Amino acid sequence: MQLIESIPNFSEGTDEKVIQKIVNDFTDSEVTFVDHTYDSYYNRLVITIIGEPENVKKALLKASDTAIKVIDMRKHKGAHPRMGAVDVVPFVPLKNITLEECIELSKRFARVLSERHNLPVFLYDESATSIERRDIDYLRKGEFEGLEDHIKEVKPDFGPETPHLTAGATITGAREIMVGMNVNLGTSDVKIAKKIAKAIHARSGGLAYVKAMACKFDGMTQIGMSNINYKKTPVYRQLELIKMEAARYGVQVVSSEFCGLIPLDALIDVCKYYLKVEDLDQKKIIEMNLP
Amino acid sequence: MQLIESIPNFSEGTDEKVIQKIVNDFTDSEVTFVDHTYDSYYNRLVITIIGEPENVKKALLKASDTAIKVIDMRKHKGAHPRMGAVDVVPFVPLKNITLEECIELSKRFARVLSERHNLPVFLYDESATSIERRDIDYLRKGEFEGLEDHIKEVKPDFGPETPHLTAGATITGAREIMVGMNVNLGTSDVKIAKKIAKAIHARSGGLAYVKAMACKFDGMTQIGMSNINYKKTPVYRQLELIKMEAARYGVQVVSSEFCGLIPLDALIDVCKYYLKVEDLDQKKIIEMNLP
Repeated sequence: MQLIESIPNFSEGTDEKVIQKIVNDFTDSEVTFVDHTYDSYYNRLVITIIGEPENVKKALLKASDTAIKVIDMRKHKGAHPRMGAVDVVPFVPLKNITLEECIELSKRFARVLSERHNLPVFLYDESATSIERRDIDYLRKGEFEGLEDHIKEVKPDFGPETPHLTAGATITGAREIMVGMNVNLGTSDVKIAKKIAKAIHARSGGLAYVKAMACKFDGMTQIGMSNINYKKTPVYRQLELIKMEAARYGVQVVSSEFCGLIPLDALIDVCKYYLKVEDLDQKKIIEMNLP
Repeated sequence: MQLIESIPNFSEGTDEKVIQKIVNDFTDSEVTFVDHTYDSYYNRLVITIIGEPENVKKALLKASDTAIKVIDMRKHKGAHPRMGAVDVVPFVPLKNITLEECIELSKRFARVLSERHNLPVFLYDESATSIERRDIDYLRKGEFEGLEDHIKEVKPDFGPETPHLTAGATITGAREIMVGMNVNLGTSDVKIAKKIAKAIHARSGGLAYVKAMACKFDGMTQIGMSNINYKKTPVYRQLELIKMEAARYGVQVVSSEFCGLIPLDALIDVCKYYLKVEDLDQKKIIEMNLP
């Protein structure tokens, strides 16, 4: 059986009714609903599902129909960059499926979505048609508000060269699995959190495959990270580097959490590092299940 | 499908031909051969297999036939306490099977083995008929050499009340899964290693569910541990306590290794502790398998 993951991002993190409608489209479908997170600061809903490729595509189209119907981007405000009601839809290979098959799937999804709603759709990451178009920030530059001008320079891969009035445009594509982790710091000073995030972030001199950003969170601060190659940059290195950078400000790591799926081998690497184990054969790990 | 583990201990850790014969009995059977370890210091062969209950029992009987045929306990010397050629045979429930079913299975194994070879067999741990007989050290007191006298006081559960001339006696029973871990220390001073082992060992004031012993190993020293309740005494606590006790002697932990199976939730606890993660839902862990 082929298995893929999708982590659609919708531009609504405040209105519980809208969130519930979109969530229901997934829980009513033949996919496994892994989790969802949303908050009004980013004003964004992020859902994680896994399932067989065609079932995932079907569920995504259904939920996208709902989102495009109920979300009006002209009224949307949030801290996270975004250009559409259905902002980003990644397709991630998990089991018995190649990246190439996920690229094809993302293109079929893009075609159907754009035709159904007369919506501009961009292909990013592994599905992109050029190196610069792989970068989501390049495609999303100017966000929803700047889309009308931006789209003249950076043409969509599917659909019209004018934004959808209320739904903007959508970005989709295949990518490798990503490990999401938030680390909560024992300080309410977001300036310190930002300095630490900068020290971790790849482009500002941190860890090669890690993006990091800081935000206020429940009276504390939080470093939100995504790791696009946990095999080369293991998860423990992220945490230990944060601890090291935080120490100069006398700040402690209070807690952490994973977002979405966690590959087993990412956890094995964590155990190997901290327990100083050289070899830890995945075949010897047993998931017990007693009556 | 029901799944159990067995970790039979045979009294031969030196003669490669004998070891290979016993190993072959398992690799030729319908069970999964997980691993085997042996050394001439303990002069003992420890094999880990998993499989369906009846297949495991069948493979164990076959290998026991071989061991009883080729091992002569009158010539056996080794650092590990032992009383028979087939010294200990535990049955461990893993999936869709109760401890009670494993107790029954161990009794059926004991009956067949004792009848086939006219061999005294003792039931231990969860299969034992009294509290004191649960303890393997109680049953094995006096070892092979003292068996003739000892067996008059502590009668076997199956078979004759006299030892088998060359194979001694066997101990079998059901027990819960155990996590085996060896920790290598950066000292060749076995006196220090013994002090650390004592500090970890339950009976001498250490961790409640942990047995620990020290030995010399490749110019270093090693603490060998078994943990009979990793849910209550998590694995990270063993390692951190060793580090703490070793620090007073200026000794470092060099490396560690697991022996046999490792339950996934034991590893999850390790990750949660070191990464400071509160919740780590097993459903979100994905074992990826890409073409």
